[in-house]
This record gives sequence, C-alpha cells and structure tokens, in this order.
Amino acid sequence: MQQDSVSRPPVVILVEPQIGENIGTTARAMLNCGLDTLRLVRPRESWPNPKAVAAASGADRVLEAATLHESVEDALADLTCVHATTARPRDMVKPVLDPRQAAPIWHRQGRSGRVGLLFGRERSGLDNDEVALADAVVEVPLNPSFRSLNLAQAVLLCAYEWRMADIDDRGEVRLGRDAAPATKQELADFYRHLEGELDRAGFLFPPEKRPRMVRNIRNIFARGGLTGQEVRSLRGIIGALARPLPSDAGEN
Amino acid sequence: MQQDSVSRPPVVILVEPQIGENIGTTARAMLNCGLDTLRLVRPRESWPNPKAVAAASGADRVLEAATLHESVEDALADLTCVHATTARPRDMVKPVLDPRQAAPIWHRQGRSGRVGLLFGRERSGLDNDEVALADAVVEVPLNPSFRSLNLAQAVLLCAYEWRMADIDDRGEVRLGRDAAPATKQELADFYRHLEGELDRAGFLFPPEKRPRMVRNIRNIFARGGLTGQEVRSLRGIIGALARPLPSDAGEN
Repeated sequence: MQQDSVSRPPVVILVEPQIGENIGTTARAMLNCGLDTLRLVRPRESWPNPKAVAAASGADRVLEAATLHESVEDALADLTCVHATTARPRDMVKPVLDPRQAAPIWHRQGRSGRVGLLFGRERSGLDNDEVALADAVVEVPLNPSFRSLNLAQAVLLCAYEWRMADIDDRGEVRLGRDAAPATKQELADFYRHLEGELDRAGFLFPPEKRPRMVRNIRNIFARGGLTGQEVRSLRGIIGALARPLPSDAGEN
Repeated sequence: MQQDSVSRPPVVILVEPQIGENIGTTARAMLNCGLDTLRLVRPRESWPNPKAVAAASGADRVLEAATLHESVEDALADLTCVHATTARPRDMVKPVLDPRQAAPIWHRQGRSGRVGLLFGRERSGLDNDEVALADAVVEVPLNPSFRSLNLAQAVLLCAYEWRMADIDDRGEVRLGRDAAPATKQELADFYRHLEGELDRAGFLFPPEKRPRMVRNIRNIFARGGLTGQEVRSLRGIIGALARPLPSDAGEN
C-alpha cells in the first residue's frame, strides 16, 4: 500500500497513437519529469516498436513497462481521476483546467487513488465519448493564432506541471478515510446498471439520440468526483426506484 | 516604440545548432507560446534549411524572420537581459533560477528592454565563456535520474513559462454552451421529487436514518454544479425508473 503522504504520479494513456516515434518521445518526456507508467490503447503500429525505442533516448524502461489495452475503458478501469487533454472546445459540461490548475488535483488524488491523463490521436484527438469518460478537460493555454503542440510536447507540459507541483508541495488537505474515490470500474458498473434500467424503461429513445443522452447523463455523474460509497448509494437508489412495488401490480 | 505596459517576448538564441530539424521544432515550440524572434549563431547546416521548414509545422514566419550571427556577442548585442539555459551545473558565480522563477524577470525586463534566452548545442550545451555572457542561468528542475530534454523541449518549457506569466486571468472554470446553472428552486424541486419516490419505494428506511441518508444523497448532486438542463434530465430519469412497466404488472 501507498503511504498516505506519497502521491503516485499520473498514468499517461495514449489513445490510438499513430506514429511509433511519438510513443518514444512521450516516454522520454514523461521520465524527464518522473512519470513512468504508460498505457497504449490500440496503437496503429505493432508493439513493441523499435522506432519508439530509438526515439525514447534512453527512457526504455517506460516503454518496456507499457501495457496494451483494447479499449479506453479498460485502460482507465483502476483509475480514480481521469483528465482528458484536448486543445479543442467541446460542447460539453466539463470543468476546463489548464495544467497548472490541474496539477494540485493530480497530487491530491494521487495520494489515495490513481490519476490518469488521457491523450488522443495525433491528427484527430479524442472523440466525444472518450472525453465523456473524464472528470475534467485539461487544455494548455497556447497562442490562439498558433496551436500546434505535438503529442510528446503536450505530455511534457502536463508532466512538467506535475513535477513542479511535486517540488513545490503545498501540503494539500487530504480526503478522509471514508472518502476513497470511486474507481473507474465502479463507475463503469454503475453506468451500465443505470443505462440498462433506462433502456428497460424505454427512456433512451429514439436509438439515434441514445449516444448523446448517455453521454450527457454520464457527464452529470463524472463531474462530482464520486466516492465508492456514493456510487454504491446511487446503485441502491436505482435498484429501489426500478423495482416495481407489489401494490403497483395490484393496481394494474 | 513599445508602450511601457507591454512586455516584448524574449528572443531565443540557438548557439551552433547541429540539426536543422531542431531549429524547426524550436520555432514551432516558440510560436505556440507567442515567441517569434529567433537568432542563430553559426548553425552547422546551411541556412535557409528545408529540414527546418518541414519540422516547423507551419511556424514558417519564425524561420523566415530568423537572423544569422557570426558570434554570440553579436547575437546578444541589443539585448538588456540574457539568461543562459543549461542542465549542467557550472562552477561559476551566477544566480541559478528555474523557468518559473525567471519568467517574471523576463516580463519585467521586457517592458523597458529586450530579453534573450540562450540555448547551447544539442550535444555539448554552452561553454563557460558563453555562460559568462549571461546575467543568470536557467535550469529546468528535471528528474535527477533522467535528464534528457531535447533542444525544442527546453525551449518549449521556457516559452511556456513566459506565456503562463503573461496570462493573468486564469483560475476560472469554464462551462460549455447551454450551461446555465440550476437555480436553488430547481434543485429543491428535484430533491423533493427524488426523495418522494424513494419514500414510496421504501428506500429511506428506517425513519431515524432518513435525515442522514437524505443529506448524503443531496451531497452527491450538490457537488457537481448541475445545470438546469441536467436537473431536468435527472427528473426524467427518476420518472422513467419509477414508472412501473405494464409487463411488470403482468409478471406479478
């Protein structure tokens, strides 16, 4: 177990990285700032990738320990706080932070749970469903007339802010013992439970609107920083509401 | 003439850059953060350099305006404050700052004069005579067991710190469109709706625990900063879940 006072560095998750070299430069950027856990969701090129090793400039151990994942959900399953990095505005109700504002959150969350930073494809970034899985959006406040960070540079700026906040540790207030944040697995199970009941009730209708409705509902809950206990309470509520009463059967 | 209140961004000076591509990625890193003046002291490859343009990803105007200089002294001649960036300790009596400490100095100096950031060769950095020309040394506080920033990444972190110091109005959580926050009345009506259904389902039981259960449930929703639209969605969900299905009546 981690000690209470130690904050684990964020996990970096690359979604469908297209260029092996960028995985290597990402590993290099990470290790410069003390981050060493890398997860790859469906990289386009095969893995392991010699081009990644060549570009890592010695950060080989990050690449060797990197894990492959079939889905973003799988890559986030054990995490308690996920921030999606994107340069593009989304019509979505999410807190938008810059890396400097986010870094103290990463430190606080990293003491009792595990933080993940989600990075999208080089060309197209993250899609809306992927952003919806995150608790907040992190955006680097670049020159409005020239925004062109490559993947490893975006990772570097986030990792750098984590490191600067680590050096300048301000002794943040810790969460109480009962307030362990929900894992992404607990949240995923909760969403499945809720959406299953809503399908059964005919609420997520018509089918073409279902994805957007689901995303909006998930956003409501993703934002609150739910604890594991709260997720269990919500599942209890769903179970109680969805269970037909004996009297209802008699009335009909 | 510059107005007194406007701070000119620092000039970036690359001393004997060895790889054309690095000049391009440096220009890109600079322009992302609003820096546009680049000076090259004896680049190893001929100039202009198509490899630099290819690597600049559109930051061409920085390359086109870049000037060539025969000596470091010449490249610094019009500047009023010069900071040398190096990752290696030098036996020299100079102030050593990290980029975050240095950025306010760059801003202050840039109001009345012009600041230069001096970067050394990819392999060997700056020599002692070159460092001696600077007013201070800037060092990025990297992972002591892995320090391997490339040239453009070192430029990026300095340029980023200049930009962050340039942005005053941070600290605001932005919400997407359609994000008018729920009124207290809308929230109160929502809680009454939810709690009414939970009472009906026998969930808020036994009575002596009801106040605490209600408080915990309200806390879940109070924390997320719900919008009016989200509260309406949640009420729709409650209505859908709590409404018994016709088939349920038949099953019982």
